[in-house]
Amino acid sequence: MNFLVPGFKGSAVSAGIKYQGRFDLGLIASNEPAVLAAVFTRNEVKAAPVLAGLDRLSRGGPYTRAVVVNSGNANACTGIEGVAHVREICALVAKEMGITPEDVMASSTGVIGQPLPIGRIRNAIPILVRGLSENGLEAVADAILTTDTVRKTAVRHIDIGGVGVTVAGMAKGAGMIGPNMGLPQATMLSFVLSDARIDPAWWQSALERTVSDTFNRITIDGDTSTNDSVMAMANGLAGNMEINDIQYGETFKYVLKDLLQDLARQIVKDGEGVTKCVTLVVRGARTGDEADRIARTIAGSPLVKTAFFGEDPNWGRILAAAGRAGFPLDQGLISLAFDDIEIVRMGTGVGKEAEDLAKKVMTAGEFTVVLDLGLGQEEARILTSDLSIDYVRINADYCT
Amino acid sequence: MNFLVPGFKGSAVSAGIKYQGRFDLGLIASNEPAVLAAVFTRNEVKAAPVLAGLDRLSRGGPYTRAVVVNSGNANACTGIEGVAHVREICALVAKEMGITPEDVMASSTGVIGQPLPIGRIRNAIPILVRGLSENGLEAVADAILTTDTVRKTAVRHIDIGGVGVTVAGMAKGAGMIGPNMGLPQATMLSFVLSDARIDPAWWQSALERTVSDTFNRITIDGDTSTNDSVMAMANGLAGNMEINDIQYGETFKYVLKDLLQDLARQIVKDGEGVTKCVTLVVRGARTGDEADRIARTIAGSPLVKTAFFGEDPNWGRILAAAGRAGFPLDQGLISLAFDDIEIVRMGTGVGKEAEDLAKKVMTAGEFTVVLDLGLGQEEARILTSDLSIDYVRINADYCT
Repeated sequence: MNFLVPGFKGSAVSAGIKYQGRFDLGLIASNEPAVLAAVFTRNEVKAAPVLAGLDRLSRGGPYTRAVVVNSGNANACTGIEGVAHVREICALVAKEMGITPEDVMASSTGVIGQPLPIGRIRNAIPILVRGLSENGLEAVADAILTTDTVRKTAVRHIDIGGVGVTVAGMAKGAGMIGPNMGLPQATMLSFVLSDARIDPAWWQSALERTVSDTFNRITIDGDTSTNDSVMAMANGLAGNMEINDIQYGETFKYVLKDLLQDLARQIVKDGEGVTKCVTLVVRGARTGDEADRIARTIAGSPLVKTAFFGEDPNWGRILAAAGRAGFPLDQGLISLAFDDIEIVRMGTGVGKEAEDLAKKVMTAGEFTVVLDLGLGQEEARILTSDLSIDYVRINADYCT
Repeated sequence: MNFLVPGFKGSAVSAGIKYQGRFDLGLIASNEPAVLAAVFTRNEVKAAPVLAGLDRLSRGGPYTRAVVVNSGNANACTGIEGVAHVREICALVAKEMGITPEDVMASSTGVIGQPLPIGRIRNAIPILVRGLSENGLEAVADAILTTDTVRKTAVRHIDIGGVGVTVAGMAKGAGMIGPNMGLPQATMLSFVLSDARIDPAWWQSALERTVSDTFNRITIDGDTSTNDSVMAMANGLAGNMEINDIQYGETFKYVLKDLLQDLARQIVKDGEGVTKCVTLVVRGARTGDEADRIARTIAGSPLVKTAFFGEDPNWGRILAAAGRAGFPLDQGLISLAFDDIEIVRMGTGVGKEAEDLAKKVMTAGEFTVVLDLGLGQEEARILTSDLSIDYVRINADYCT
């Protein structure tokens, strides 16, 4: 797959921020001012680039020309100095590109609480800007990775009233994954680029809605980051009829959701130490909120997650997790299946044969767990992972 | 320490419920009817013995003569058959002891969703009852263990108006530890025995209050069990002035809390794979609920817990967890200390030297983490653990 979007260029360099011998500073640039939509983490503790991004959005004028992003350092809990660093980086990029600092967004991922090695970044920026090229976007997708083991990108092409448009996304994220992003606030990072012509207000609301159905519905460890950010840029170069509430909006949103879901799945599959990617469905709930909160409690249970890792259809742990989510349940109505193998019916186990079949289902890297509460018609879906020995090893060693 | 309480006998046998060659069925008996107080799990999915216990309490008459308890099988999610098994076990014990079935309480811990091997239990009960002796209580404390590696008991002696009384407790619990027990509802198990003379209503309320300050304030994996139960029996044999609201209540409650806190700490220290026992204090909150929920979010964070395991004072993870607990924070007011080493002041790191000292603090098996939000006067305290490679190994292998 070639990651190309008309009117966009990318560049990446090794600035030596934390890692050696790999890209850690990336830049995405749009030849034309691009309509910007963005969501940031709802964590009360927000990194400096997130604070700067929120401030930028609050001042209106949702157009941007560039996003500069580093890995290896989150620039979070770095006080006034951290915010000053963001400002300086945006100003340096703007100067080299010949644009204004307000046209540059910034993003960071990595260790929290360490000052950015601003000197190295300062030195790297001229080379970074000089390196911009249409073929450079995949290098940016590499530069944003931290504990990720693979680059995460996806591209879609859509027909909008006879005009072909492209929408493409890159993402990173492997640990501290329990995104909770909102207006105008979403350490996963994702950057979405499109040459579509899009109404600015519609673009922001479509991004918010789509993120809440995709990235906000994945969880690896449930730890919401201080840095989660999704930024989407649309430069209009395709010359299509404007996408908005009354025309082409539903079509475009469908494709955007498919794109982000693809990236979301890539994040879970590459999660720290992950060996199982599990689609957890809670149905038969009285309300959507009940289904959602029960699904998140199960997806966050260390006992459920270690059982996934052990390929053990330990349904007692799943029922116990559901039972502590804070909603009244009737255990006699609960049923549970692994893919199409029902192992609990009316609150009790179906038997050893079914459990053996469920165990076989679990040997695959991906499977579905469906819990039916038997109480109503509402349902929720979460994409989650197991909790492995390697998750603990990676996170016990990942330094301050 | 010799676990002796006047008027109480204990017995344990190897019934072969799950484990071989170790005690797995225990019986505590009181020579006289003992005032019973009990709290059970608030999980919506409750084991059969918990349902039976709640039913027994709801019918009043809080006196009991015996508690029969098994390990290796939780008798949870076992439907009508599970409840019938509890009834049969209580009836068999009563018959052998020459008392009524209503005088017998039951408790179970182990795997969820497997039928009790009732035949083996049936066969073992006559031998169990014949084995009752004053020196048999420690054997019961062994019989209730599952993945625990050590027996957990504590004994206190108090002077009540010139009369010496004894209060003693045993407990089990190593995983699925996130107790949330309430009225009259508490897989940790604990049995408290006393020869004190106590007002029944006061006894129940004192147990509830004390459990909520001790067992309900520990967490290993945050997974609340279907079987958590604390039962407290007081037989009055010491002949002290009755303990109640207006006399000796505060003294007795102080000692009871000290006893349960001792057992709670033993549970965390022996938690599955636990290498660190951490007292987490959140202070400077606006409300007690805010302090409590932030403390529980931090204590439940996989990233915080793996950092404890790695002896890494990764304070960014602690602040990030606090920030996702659902309360507005001012990150510029936050400070954090490991024991007496302050590593965060006004939201930013104090520096490498302080972090190196904090790392040294973490090499001890027990330490305190104090997070000050700088917002108010309220505080909460949780006893928690790290998340180790062995926790994952134990729980990936623990069978269905």
